[in-house]
Amino acid sequence: MARKRFDHMNCSVAQALEVLGDWWTLLLVREAFLGTTRFKDFEHNLGIAKNILTARLDHLVARGVFSREPIEGGKHHEYRLTPMGKDLLTVVTALREWADRWVYGKGNEPVVYRDARTGKRPPPLRIRDAKGAPIDGRDLVVEPGPGADRTTRARFRSRVATE
Amino acid sequence: MARKRFDHMNCSVAQALEVLGDWWTLLLVREAFLGTTRFKDFEHNLGIAKNILTARLDHLVARGVFSREPIEGGKHHEYRLTPMGKDLLTVVTALREWADRWVYGKGNEPVVYRDARTGKRPPPLRIRDAKGAPIDGRDLVVEPGPGADRTTRARFRSRVATE
Repeated sequence: MARKRFDHMNCSVAQALEVLGDWWTLLLVREAFLGTTRFKDFEHNLGIAKNILTARLDHLVARGVFSREPIEGGKHHEYRLTPMGKDLLTVVTALREWADRWVYGKGNEPVVYRDARTGKRPPPLRIRDAKGAPIDGRDLVVEPGPGADRTTRARFRSRVATE
Repeated sequence: MARKRFDHMNCSVAQALEVLGDWWTLLLVREAFLGTTRFKDFEHNLGIAKNILTARLDHLVARGVFSREPIEGGKHHEYRLTPMGKDLLTVVTALREWADRWVYGKGNEPVVYRDARTGKRPPPLRIRDAKGAPIDGRDLVVEPGPGADRTTRARFRSRVATE
C-alpha cells in the first residue's frame, strides 16, 4: 500500500479508514452483505485480481472484519462478516444512499432495499435526536471526547460543526 | 491513481467510491465540516503533501463535492462544501461512529457531537422504518431498482441481505 498511513491521527474517521485499508474493502463488505462467502465468488462478482483479493481478505481477517472458517470436508474456506464487519451496514448504506441521490439520481437506483416485514423502503439515514427528529448539521456541536489527546483538546474547544 | 476504477459497476457503493477517489477525500470533507476553508489550513491540519492536496481538491471541485471561490481582494481561494458535499455528513458520521465502537471503544472517543439545542448526544445512526424503529439487517431485502442493468436484475432477483 503506497498510501499515507492515518494511524497516528486522534480521529475516528481516520482510524476507520486505517482499518478499512482501501476502497476494495467496502465492496468486499457489500458482497458479504449480499451473501457471498467464497473466494471464487468474491473474485467473480467484483472482477478483482486474485492477488489483490488475497491481500484484502487477509488484511480484513487480521483486523477482525471478516472471519475465515474451513468448509467441512474440503480445502476451501468461507469468509463471513464478524459483528465488527456487520456493523459496517450503516457505512455501506450511507455511501449507497449518497450515490443514489447524487450520481444516479432519484428513479435510477441500481438496487433498492425493503423492510421484509412491511415491503416498505426505509427512509434515508439521517442524524436524529432521541425522539427520532432529524438534526440539522448546523445544530451539531463538536467537542473533545474522553479519548481526546492534547492537540484535539486544543483544537476543538467550543468549535461548531458547519453546514 | 493506480487503483482499479469502479465506474463500470452498476452499484451505488462503487459509484460513491469512484467519486470520492480515495480516503483523503473523506478527511478533507471532515475538515470542511469542522470549518476549514483554506488550502494552508487543510495542509496544516491533515499533514498532507501540497501536491496531493492540490490534486485531491481539484478532483473534488471537478466532481462537485467542493466549490472553489476567490477571496475578495486576494489571490487565495476558499474551498466550501457544496450541497452534494454537505450531504456526506451521514457517511462521515457512520465511519466515525464505527471506529468509536470498534477501534477506540466506549469512553475513549476522540471527539463527541452534541445537539446544540439540547446539549444531548445524538443516538448512533441506524437504519430505521418510517416510524423511527430500528430495522435489523436480517429484515432487509435487496432487489433490483429502477436503474438496474441486466446483470443486476439477474443477480438480485429475490436475494436477501444477510446479517
